[in-house]
Amino acid sequence: MVAADTIVATATPYGVSGIAVVRLSGPAAQTITSALCTPENGAAPTLPPRTAVLTVVHNQGIALDEVVITYFKAPGSYTGEDVVEIACHGSPVIVESIIAETCRLGARIADPGEFTRRAFLNGKLDLVQAESVAGLIQSKSVESSQLNLRLLRGQLSERLFDLRDKIISLLTEVEFELDFSEDELNPDLLPRAKNILNALVKNFQTLIDSYQQGKLLSRGANVVIIGAPNVGKSTLLNALTNSDRAIVSATPGTTRDTIDYPLILAGVPINLVDTAGLQQSTEEIELEGIRRTHIRIEAADLLLAVYEPPGFNQSFDFNYRPSVPLLNVYNKIDTLSTDKRRNLPTDDEGQLYISAKTGDGLDRLKTRIKSAMQISSSTSDELMLTSARQFQALSVCESNLKQATVLLQSPAVAFELVSVELREAIDAIDRLLGKTTADDIINNIFSNFCVGK
Amino acid sequence: MVAADTIVATATPYGVSGIAVVRLSGPAAQTITSALCTPENGAAPTLPPRTAVLTVVHNQGIALDEVVITYFKAPGSYTGEDVVEIACHGSPVIVESIIAETCRLGARIADPGEFTRRAFLNGKLDLVQAESVAGLIQSKSVESSQLNLRLLRGQLSERLFDLRDKIISLLTEVEFELDFSEDELNPDLLPRAKNILNALVKNFQTLIDSYQQGKLLSRGANVVIIGAPNVGKSTLLNALTNSDRAIVSATPGTTRDTIDYPLILAGVPINLVDTAGLQQSTEEIELEGIRRTHIRIEAADLLLAVYEPPGFNQSFDFNYRPSVPLLNVYNKIDTLSTDKRRNLPTDDEGQLYISAKTGDGLDRLKTRIKSAMQISSSTSDELMLTSARQFQALSVCESNLKQATVLLQSPAVAFELVSVELREAIDAIDRLLGKTTADDIINNIFSNFCVGK
Repeated sequence: MVAADTIVATATPYGVSGIAVVRLSGPAAQTITSALCTPENGAAPTLPPRTAVLTVVHNQGIALDEVVITYFKAPGSYTGEDVVEIACHGSPVIVESIIAETCRLGARIADPGEFTRRAFLNGKLDLVQAESVAGLIQSKSVESSQLNLRLLRGQLSERLFDLRDKIISLLTEVEFELDFSEDELNPDLLPRAKNILNALVKNFQTLIDSYQQGKLLSRGANVVIIGAPNVGKSTLLNALTNSDRAIVSATPGTTRDTIDYPLILAGVPINLVDTAGLQQSTEEIELEGIRRTHIRIEAADLLLAVYEPPGFNQSFDFNYRPSVPLLNVYNKIDTLSTDKRRNLPTDDEGQLYISAKTGDGLDRLKTRIKSAMQISSSTSDELMLTSARQFQALSVCESNLKQATVLLQSPAVAFELVSVELREAIDAIDRLLGKTTADDIINNIFSNFCVGK
Repeated sequence: MVAADTIVATATPYGVSGIAVVRLSGPAAQTITSALCTPENGAAPTLPPRTAVLTVVHNQGIALDEVVITYFKAPGSYTGEDVVEIACHGSPVIVESIIAETCRLGARIADPGEFTRRAFLNGKLDLVQAESVAGLIQSKSVESSQLNLRLLRGQLSERLFDLRDKIISLLTEVEFELDFSEDELNPDLLPRAKNILNALVKNFQTLIDSYQQGKLLSRGANVVIIGAPNVGKSTLLNALTNSDRAIVSATPGTTRDTIDYPLILAGVPINLVDTAGLQQSTEEIELEGIRRTHIRIEAADLLLAVYEPPGFNQSFDFNYRPSVPLLNVYNKIDTLSTDKRRNLPTDDEGQLYISAKTGDGLDRLKTRIKSAMQISSSTSDELMLTSARQFQALSVCESNLKQATVLLQSPAVAFELVSVELREAIDAIDRLLGKTTADDIINNIFSNFCVGK
């Protein structure tokens, strides 16, 4: 299936850099590129497939930039269509100008994920592999990238096809029995079917259990610093990020706008968020700051609740979801007497004594953040689910297979119902792989991509 | 001149995207890449020059990402050395991992601008062209990109070589005269030398005058919103950017940390900055906010001084540099009675009446910002200076030529001194083009590049 129109988008991030890449895909990719590179009264450059060609692109007839162009001829391209990649100088203005020119010449700006969607529609990838492209791009750790590459190269798809084949051959036997009366039942079938189903359920269970870790590996974590005013939240953000990003002062309520700082702590990708202090207030700006704090708490994967050392007034309220891990961080231990500091309780699981000001205890806090996120290192060939869609499809599948097991245990086995459960399990896998997937689900998957992929 | 070591850097911006490009240059670029792409117990892919090859890169022996690799053989590459470009999936983690692996295999992380520096050292570019590469990358408008491409393609260098040739031939005649006594002077020489010098000075003057516009085209502008507390600065930022980036409230002193928002206003690249209100204060946080406001005022290219309508208390102090244009913006005209609003003075050059809240007058403000920055549209073949280094070198050159003109007007012409001035003018051009440039100047030029170019 080859699309009628030609799409264009930038494939590299927005920003100033050595190189940016603009990508075209579709039947007119080559002719549009030739026109883009043809000077007034000049000849178009020739573009042999898979060959890097140095040439000049134009804007309204005026030479705009020197670029390197590579043409990938259909079907030997990412999308399976004619694809052209234009590597220009990395200025957003140049990129935008090239895209505007290609649109004037007949291209259309691609929707998010449309290149990969075309690869799927042209049979270059199944839907699980397509999801792994987004996973690769968004991977925030080497382990996540390696995991998603295993998915892109089809290892999870193969496993699913293998499980699907086993369900189909069981289904074939069951359907065969449907044609015969109970008396003629193959005596071997029931125990073997139960064994096969148990093994299948165990296989699906392993995959489903892998989702928790796969999810954290894939998307990283929001770590939100909260607490009463003036307990040192901004000082902690600055200390953990080794920066002076946030204004700090001795006055309660210094921070108003929330502050985001991305960092890697002990190998884990973290978005660290500093927030306005939580307290009863009637003051308009403070209330707006507090409202924004609560929004960030809602999206947190880990909360760092900061307090001063025991004995100070520092209570604060928020809507705590027990599913989100929380570390209690007692700050400012530098203000304690040596005696008191010596007698502090030793750090236990949910409680830590630190000084953001002197740096005391920060290393332990970083380690504790990692373990609170429950990220362990993965092995090089482990397969994990990485998307909620995979998790849900395989959960449906497992539940059908369990239901089939229950049906087989009844005294008079209703093979018609077993057959229905097995068919639904197969359908769930087929939808997951995109063999029989409704348009709206496909739309949903590719709309999560960045433009240009 | 080929460097002994091999450098590596990412050539695309940091961020999540379809593609990122890692670039290697140096004698080991090809062998390092082969090792990077060789699986355990597998064979390295072959990399024919200028051919896009689909392969897999590894991290510690584990497959990390599917990539497209293009090898450019020396001297037919950007740097003149062996160059390899690795187009991987656009995850910062994948990019960092590939760079770490290439370093393990013998590459070294490139200094900013080191690729272009090598191109210069290998004679692929002169220094003016090298500067234009940075200009292209940082271009914030189509006009700037077109201008810098003209420089990259050598149009300014050619003009300078042409002017240099004219000075040299004049110098040759002058030196020839030095061998003779005054009586034997070629009667033709003096008037002709004056004519040549006048024409040269005019040429240099045109180039020098072009710097003001070339500079604005190249680097865009910081537009800083300042004023007393509570005159609506944050509301104006939000209105101009069509966002709710800044918290706004009726309470004076809501904004503390400065807020940056990049946008394009009427075609001009603008970094819009909201700041803490300026007033006398003894309050610690407010003083810190005000300190940061003053820092941003120092770097401003245009100031928007916001006031409430006439009659309110709204004075504020800052260190005003008259070289920076300033627009007086009277906000909150929605609070005026219809009568008063009707009788407002019409907008004149430095004064505007608006309502950030209702949007009244914002379009006029945007237009006024553009004209205050004095950006006019350039023609397609105009050459402009784009760097302070170019401006200074040609200013020196012009001053030498003017001095030579003065010397020629004295009753007894000291041809030795004329010769010195002409030589110094030639030296200035040679330094500008990098024909005779000290190492520290070269270092300075390339340190302004982004890494990966």
